[in-house]
Amino acid sequence: MTSQIITQLETPALLLERGRMQKNIARLRDQLVRLKVAFRPHVKTAKCVEVALAMSGGSPGPITVSTLREADYFADHGFTDILYAVGFTPNKMGHFAALLKRGVMLTVILDSLDAAHALVQASAAMPFAVNALIEIDCDGHRAGILPDCADLLAVADVLAKGGVIVAGVMTHAGGSYDCRSDEALRVMAEQERSRTVRAAERLRQAGHAAPVVSVGSTPTALFAQNLTGVTEVRAGVFVFFDLVMAGLDVCRVDDIALSVLTTVIGHQREKGWTIVDAGWMAMSRDRGTATQPVDQGFGLVCDANGVALPDYIMVSANQEHGIIAHRNGAEGKPLDIPVGAQLRILPNHACATAAQHARYHVLDGTSAVVDGWERISGW
Amino acid sequence: MTSQIITQLETPALLLERGRMQKNIARLRDQLVRLKVAFRPHVKTAKCVEVALAMSGGSPGPITVSTLREADYFADHGFTDILYAVGFTPNKMGHFAALLKRGVMLTVILDSLDAAHALVQASAAMPFAVNALIEIDCDGHRAGILPDCADLLAVADVLAKGGVIVAGVMTHAGGSYDCRSDEALRVMAEQERSRTVRAAERLRQAGHAAPVVSVGSTPTALFAQNLTGVTEVRAGVFVFFDLVMAGLDVCRVDDIALSVLTTVIGHQREKGWTIVDAGWMAMSRDRGTATQPVDQGFGLVCDANGVALPDYIMVSANQEHGIIAHRNGAEGKPLDIPVGAQLRILPNHACATAAQHARYHVLDGTSAVVDGWERISGW
Repeated sequence: MTSQIITQLETPALLLERGRMQKNIARLRDQLVRLKVAFRPHVKTAKCVEVALAMSGGSPGPITVSTLREADYFADHGFTDILYAVGFTPNKMGHFAALLKRGVMLTVILDSLDAAHALVQASAAMPFAVNALIEIDCDGHRAGILPDCADLLAVADVLAKGGVIVAGVMTHAGGSYDCRSDEALRVMAEQERSRTVRAAERLRQAGHAAPVVSVGSTPTALFAQNLTGVTEVRAGVFVFFDLVMAGLDVCRVDDIALSVLTTVIGHQREKGWTIVDAGWMAMSRDRGTATQPVDQGFGLVCDANGVALPDYIMVSANQEHGIIAHRNGAEGKPLDIPVGAQLRILPNHACATAAQHARYHVLDGTSAVVDGWERISGW
Repeated sequence: MTSQIITQLETPALLLERGRMQKNIARLRDQLVRLKVAFRPHVKTAKCVEVALAMSGGSPGPITVSTLREADYFADHGFTDILYAVGFTPNKMGHFAALLKRGVMLTVILDSLDAAHALVQASAAMPFAVNALIEIDCDGHRAGILPDCADLLAVADVLAKGGVIVAGVMTHAGGSYDCRSDEALRVMAEQERSRTVRAAERLRQAGHAAPVVSVGSTPTALFAQNLTGVTEVRAGVFVFFDLVMAGLDVCRVDDIALSVLTTVIGHQREKGWTIVDAGWMAMSRDRGTATQPVDQGFGLVCDANGVALPDYIMVSANQEHGIIAHRNGAEGKPLDIPVGAQLRILPNHACATAAQHARYHVLDGTSAVVDGWERISGW
C-alpha cells in the first residue's frame, strides 16, 4: 500500500499501535506458559485475521468466536478449531452443518435441559457428531448452570444419549469487571477455576469423559496464580486493552493499542468545548467507565502523537460530533487545539469501538501508517 | 429473493416494518406540505437507498448526510443535492473535490472564523466554487454561532471574499430531545425557526444573498406550527422512530418500524432472567431512555409478531447476550418463553441500532420477509 501519515487520513479513523498490541499479546502468552495452560484467544474484539494470527503465535490455532460470521471468516483463513461461545439456537443449525461439512471442528455451548433436547433433535440431521461444552455459572453474572446443580448431570445425560459429544465445561467470569482490587481479581480467578473444575469432576464421576475445562476473561486470565485442572484460557480484549481495563488496573493507559483519530471542527469557547468529527458512531455508545472510580466520558483525549492529555475527555457524543472538555468542567482550562488539528481518543471498550470500523490503520510508534488491516462485522 | 418467514432467519437480525415506515414518512411529508416548506431528509438513520427514495417521494431529492461515505453511496444512486451536516475539515477536501467533479452539488457547513479561513484556503484548489452554510446555535446544545454574534458577519465576509458561496444558514435543535411536553416542543420549534431566520436576515442586511434557511430535528419538524422564513427542514429518525421518540410523545410505541429479532438461548429462572442472542452488538450501547421518565433498558420486548410486552425490557447486554427481565425486577412475573423461541426488541435509538447491521429484513405486517435492503456504514 501507499505509505501515508496520519495527517493524510480522512477522519474519524481507527488507529492500531502494533508494538503495543504485540507487547500485550506477549504478556498474556507468557502468563499462560507459566501456568501451563493452552490459549484459545477470543477473536470477537479484533475480528481481524492479522490480529488473530498474532494472538495465536503466527499460525492458526484454536479460537473462540461470538458469531458464526466470525467462524466463516476465520475458517476461510485456516482456523479450524473454533468454539462458538454463545448458546446454541436451532435457527443456526444449517450454518453449523455448513461449517462442519467444510472441516471446521466447531464446538457449541448450552446451559439447560431445554437447549440439550433442542440440540439433540437438531443434531440428528447433522453430518457429524456435534461437540458441546456445558456452560457453568461461576459468578452469577450471566448464563450457565451452577457447578453443584443437579441439572449439570441431567444435561450431560441428555446430550450423551442423543449422540452429542460432551466435550466438557466452559465459563466466563464476567463478574471480574466489577472487581476493584488486584486481590479481588485473584480471588475471582481462583473462583472461576475452582468452580469450573468442580463441574468437570462431577461429569467425570458420572462417567462422561469431559476432557475440556475452558475458562476466561481478560482480568482473570492475567491475575490467575494457579490454573490446575483448567485445559484452556479464553481472552480477547487484552489484545488492545482499553480504559475499562485501565480502570481495573489490569493495564496502564499507555498499554492501550487502539484509538480513534479525529479532527477539531470547532469550539464553543465560553463553555470550554472543543468539537471534533468523532462522535458515538466512531467511539460507540459504550460508557463502561461510568461505573468506575474515574469516569472517562466517551473516551480519553490524546494529542496527535498518542500522548494522553489526562485532564481532557469526550464529555458528550452525537452521531458524528464529539464534545471534548476538561474533566472538571468549567473549573478546568479548555483544550487549546485549533480547527483542523488532529487528536486521538482512547476507547472505553475496545470491542465496542473497533466494531464501529471496517479497518485498522496500523502504526508502529510514529505517525506513519505502516499497514491497513480489514475487519469483519455482522452475523 | 427467496421468500422467508422470520423463524427461518438466523438471529440476531434487523427487521423493518415497511407499512409503519410508510406511515411515518407520510406523517412528516404531510406536515411539511401544510407548512409549505421543502424537505431534505437526513439519511444518516437509514443509510439505505430504498428508504431514502421513500422519504424523497419515490425519486431522488435533496438529502442531508453525516459522512462522505453516505455522499458517495447516495450519489451512486442518483442523489445529487447533498448537504454534509458535519463541520468541514481540511483532510476531507480531496473527497469533497471528487464529489464535486462527479456532478454532486455538495454543501458544507462551518461555524468559526478559523474554519472559514481554512475552507477558503482549501477551496482555492477546488474545481468549482464551494457552497457553505453557516451553522447557527439555536439552543446551546452543540455547535454553531449565536444568531446575534458579530462572528456571523465576519465569517460570511471571509467566505465571500475568498470565493466561497454563502448559501445561508442551518441549525439543529438537538435540545428538543430534552423537552418534556408537547408545549415545550412547540416552543423549541419556534425558537429554532426564529433564531435561524434572524441569522439569515442579518446576513442579508449585510449584503449576502443567503437564500437557504435549513432547520431540523424530528421533534421540532413534527411539532412546528409555523415555519415562516425557513426554506427546508431536515429530519431522519422519524422514518423509523424509536423508544426515545416514544418517550418524548413524538410517536407511539406501535409506530416504531425497526426491531431486532432474537432467539431465547437460556434462562436463569431464580433471577427472573431470559437470556437471548441479541446483545449490545445487535442493539447498540445506546441508553437514550435512561434519562427519560421511563427507562427502557437496552430495548423493549415484543413477542415474535411484534406485539409489545410492555412489562419486559432488556435490562443488561453483553456483546452477543441480552438479559431480559420484568422492569420491576424480582417483583415482576418472569417472561415465560422457551429456549429456541423468538422475540423482537424495539430500540432506544434507531440510528444507533440500525448502524450495527448491514441489512434490513423488510416485513409488511406479517412474519414473511418481503424484501432485503442493504445499508452502508463507515466513513
